[in-house]
Amino acid sequence: MNPMGFWNDQQLRSIDRMLNPQSIAVVGASPDLHIFRGRTLKVMLGHRYDGRIYPVSRSHAEVQGLDAYPSVAAAPEPIDLAILIIPAEFVPDELERCAAAGVKAAMILSSGFAETATPAGRDLQARVVAIAERHGMTVCGPNAEGFVNTAAALCPTFSPAVENLYIPLVPPWRTRGHVAVVAQSGGMGFALFDRGRPRELPFSYIVTTGNEACLETFEIVDHLLDEGRTDVFLLYLETIRDPRTFERAAARALEAGKPIIVAKIGRSEPGARASLAHTGAIAGDHAAYRAAFRRHGIIEAVDIDEMVDLAAGFSLYRERLPAGNRVGIGSASGGGGGWLADLCVGAGLTVPVLDPPTRALLDQRIPSYGSSQNPVDATAQAIVQAGYGELMRLIAGSSEIDAVIMVVSARITSTFERERDTLAAVARHSDKPIFLWSYTLPNPDTVRILSKAGYPLFTSMQACVRTIAAMARYRAIRERRLRGFDEPDAPGDAGATG
Amino acid sequence: MNPMGFWNDQQLRSIDRMLNPQSIAVVGASPDLHIFRGRTLKVMLGHRYDGRIYPVSRSHAEVQGLDAYPSVAAAPEPIDLAILIIPAEFVPDELERCAAAGVKAAMILSSGFAETATPAGRDLQARVVAIAERHGMTVCGPNAEGFVNTAAALCPTFSPAVENLYIPLVPPWRTRGHVAVVAQSGGMGFALFDRGRPRELPFSYIVTTGNEACLETFEIVDHLLDEGRTDVFLLYLETIRDPRTFERAAARALEAGKPIIVAKIGRSEPGARASLAHTGAIAGDHAAYRAAFRRHGIIEAVDIDEMVDLAAGFSLYRERLPAGNRVGIGSASGGGGGWLADLCVGAGLTVPVLDPPTRALLDQRIPSYGSSQNPVDATAQAIVQAGYGELMRLIAGSSEIDAVIMVVSARITSTFERERDTLAAVARHSDKPIFLWSYTLPNPDTVRILSKAGYPLFTSMQACVRTIAAMARYRAIRERRLRGFDEPDAPGDAGATG
Repeated sequence: MNPMGFWNDQQLRSIDRMLNPQSIAVVGASPDLHIFRGRTLKVMLGHRYDGRIYPVSRSHAEVQGLDAYPSVAAAPEPIDLAILIIPAEFVPDELERCAAAGVKAAMILSSGFAETATPAGRDLQARVVAIAERHGMTVCGPNAEGFVNTAAALCPTFSPAVENLYIPLVPPWRTRGHVAVVAQSGGMGFALFDRGRPRELPFSYIVTTGNEACLETFEIVDHLLDEGRTDVFLLYLETIRDPRTFERAAARALEAGKPIIVAKIGRSEPGARASLAHTGAIAGDHAAYRAAFRRHGIIEAVDIDEMVDLAAGFSLYRERLPAGNRVGIGSASGGGGGWLADLCVGAGLTVPVLDPPTRALLDQRIPSYGSSQNPVDATAQAIVQAGYGELMRLIAGSSEIDAVIMVVSARITSTFERERDTLAAVARHSDKPIFLWSYTLPNPDTVRILSKAGYPLFTSMQACVRTIAAMARYRAIRERRLRGFDEPDAPGDAGATG
Repeated sequence: MNPMGFWNDQQLRSIDRMLNPQSIAVVGASPDLHIFRGRTLKVMLGHRYDGRIYPVSRSHAEVQGLDAYPSVAAAPEPIDLAILIIPAEFVPDELERCAAAGVKAAMILSSGFAETATPAGRDLQARVVAIAERHGMTVCGPNAEGFVNTAAALCPTFSPAVENLYIPLVPPWRTRGHVAVVAQSGGMGFALFDRGRPRELPFSYIVTTGNEACLETFEIVDHLLDEGRTDVFLLYLETIRDPRTFERAAARALEAGKPIIVAKIGRSEPGARASLAHTGAIAGDHAAYRAAFRRHGIIEAVDIDEMVDLAAGFSLYRERLPAGNRVGIGSASGGGGGWLADLCVGAGLTVPVLDPPTRALLDQRIPSYGSSQNPVDATAQAIVQAGYGELMRLIAGSSEIDAVIMVVSARITSTFERERDTLAAVARHSDKPIFLWSYTLPNPDTVRILSKAGYPLFTSMQACVRTIAAMARYRAIRERRLRGFDEPDAPGDAGATG
């Protein structure tokens, strides 16, 4: 599990000190809540983190109700993690002082480094790298937006996405299938969190890495694989800085069956131009990236929505992936069933006619103007009389299919309220993944009931279908790999079509 | 404007009698709110329709507080529209009685006709057709789910999508760019309404047509073109029943610049199988459909979300379509800008570097760690100091671009509240369409502010980009058509990729 031995042990401890610190210095903390230096401390204090937080300020003795200290060295105990939110030109000297005070890890939120494409910015970044290397310090950023460790309720970030939260960072009933976000863009990293929470995605970490002067995405992935609290990875990449680290982490993730879902920016000339200006990233040749992703079963997503949808599916079903491409569709809306069938075929899935015994069971529950073929047009009457759960159970029981999509209307909660126990039992006993697609906009109460019962609920037809296709593909690639075969190069990659 | 002369006039009046009746009989109306016969009347009574509604019931003298009548003929005035919600076997005789009583139009909500694929069902449907033709009656359905006329607050349907509405059918400030839905599936037709309302789409009509035994989709489109209250069409099609009607309506819509957005089901074998079982529709050869759509500038959409997104764009900007493929992107998130740029290029758009004068203006407002190239990485600081509105105005002013995407975080309303007037002024004075994409989930208050200011707000990156590409393509096709050129057949259609 740890082919790199000592190096990795050390790295593991050091990244852990950053993500799971007991003591934190917030360098540059301010009482002004309109600026990042004030916002970051406020966001941190808004959560129940139970380590110690020390504001470091040259101008205030107290900041937001906490005693402040003139320097990191003056803090009353050794500091595990320093958050630096001071102008770029002061960062190298401050980092030296942190190292001298024994700080193990630093997260640099300041901008103004290599991403400015100026000699001054590049020089500042080179100094940061030199200091980190000299002292063996784990340094994340610069130009990062901080991170979230949900288990520790630790949010050292100025992202509004974790400000003013009135609901828990993770729904308490989501105890498995945790999703980590690692993003070279703070905005996009926290957007994934913002979009995933109403879907009840159980996030473990959101880590934004900015320019990645020292610590890079796949070192964090590698660390999280060792730590063991993460099952699915969502990565926003503008570049891959070290192919060796990438290869190691990607291979280990596939072996462990922990899918990596990436958005790789810079496929186009303007996208590459944007990445260079954003984090100083060299986008590189996308065909080479795509081949590397394919080799390791890494799933390329088109956009934020697709990343969240894929994560929703893998989070629940990574141990129950479809064994093949055959989908059974059940629907109260004959129109919705047909539409989904077209999309399934478009995504490389099949929608075979069900086997006669299954059809006989369904026909007992469906009126004559419905159909048991597949898509199963159950009609509204059968939903009322037999229920979604029973229909799903029967379709999932067919020998002809590997996954089920049930078309529902999640706007109204009462149906799901009534079927709560049946739905939970079907989810528990089925050995095939069952996906729900709602043609109406879901009521949040329905989302909660279905999340507790153990189902992913999709609103996008295309996303639902593409998630199933990606899961079947991932399982096939992983099984070939575990049997010792490499992925062949395929010219017509069925991945991202953006 | 009316090449078919008399026939069309008659048809127009007759369809109008269905969609804009003064008097309605609800045949089969029931006090039982758990069944369709009770639900339909209840839904109707939940809206401020100011025509007369007469329940017709053989077993009740009063239904839901209204006097009921034993037959349509017994109603106290001539009936414009009869809603039939009685078992299929009674429908033909009832339709005869309606005709005898002078009823001009009927909407048949009952199922059990040709879609059952039984001789009995086919025979019942043939009788309906014969009666309608003999009496010149406009008959919609059977197997339909009713319709909505928003201007008349008339909702003869059992769809839960228009039940218990606590907000108006159309936001009062959306006075232009009305969207009509015509759908061969009731579930999908009302799903489009359900999805479009939180986006503040101004719907004119939702008409569901079921089996289309008599009245078919493109007759309704043709009528709505004459009526003039609809600017954008969303069509769910399982088949096109009469190519001549289709050709006429499609050509007139393109000439009028009123885009038609379709989902055509039955591209795949299981999809076609589902359509046949659902409404008795013969799906036909999709390549032929696609060629016909292309010829008339009809836009094929992948799924419900894409239909709503396209409608949101065309509804606001059908008179300000992008003159070309060049997109200017502004963003507070450098990551989001680069990602969108990749998606633009993937959709056939370009993201050119802006002209020097525009860049000079932008550079005055953007800090050094941002970028004015395109995507414009404005940084959060410039959003706070210059504002979204000002940045959008500057980018839209560039000679190098035809449309603008501004990346925003719509979760927080205060920014938009503060910029309300600027935003409205920029929308009013710009001659280029400006699209907003939010990387966070929008607060409904933000949606309202932006809708009032005149902007479409997207949450899906892919949808935003594909909408712009579709609009540019539509404009190009229409302009060629108006100059007298037909669309060439293109093997690689850039339409739906599902």
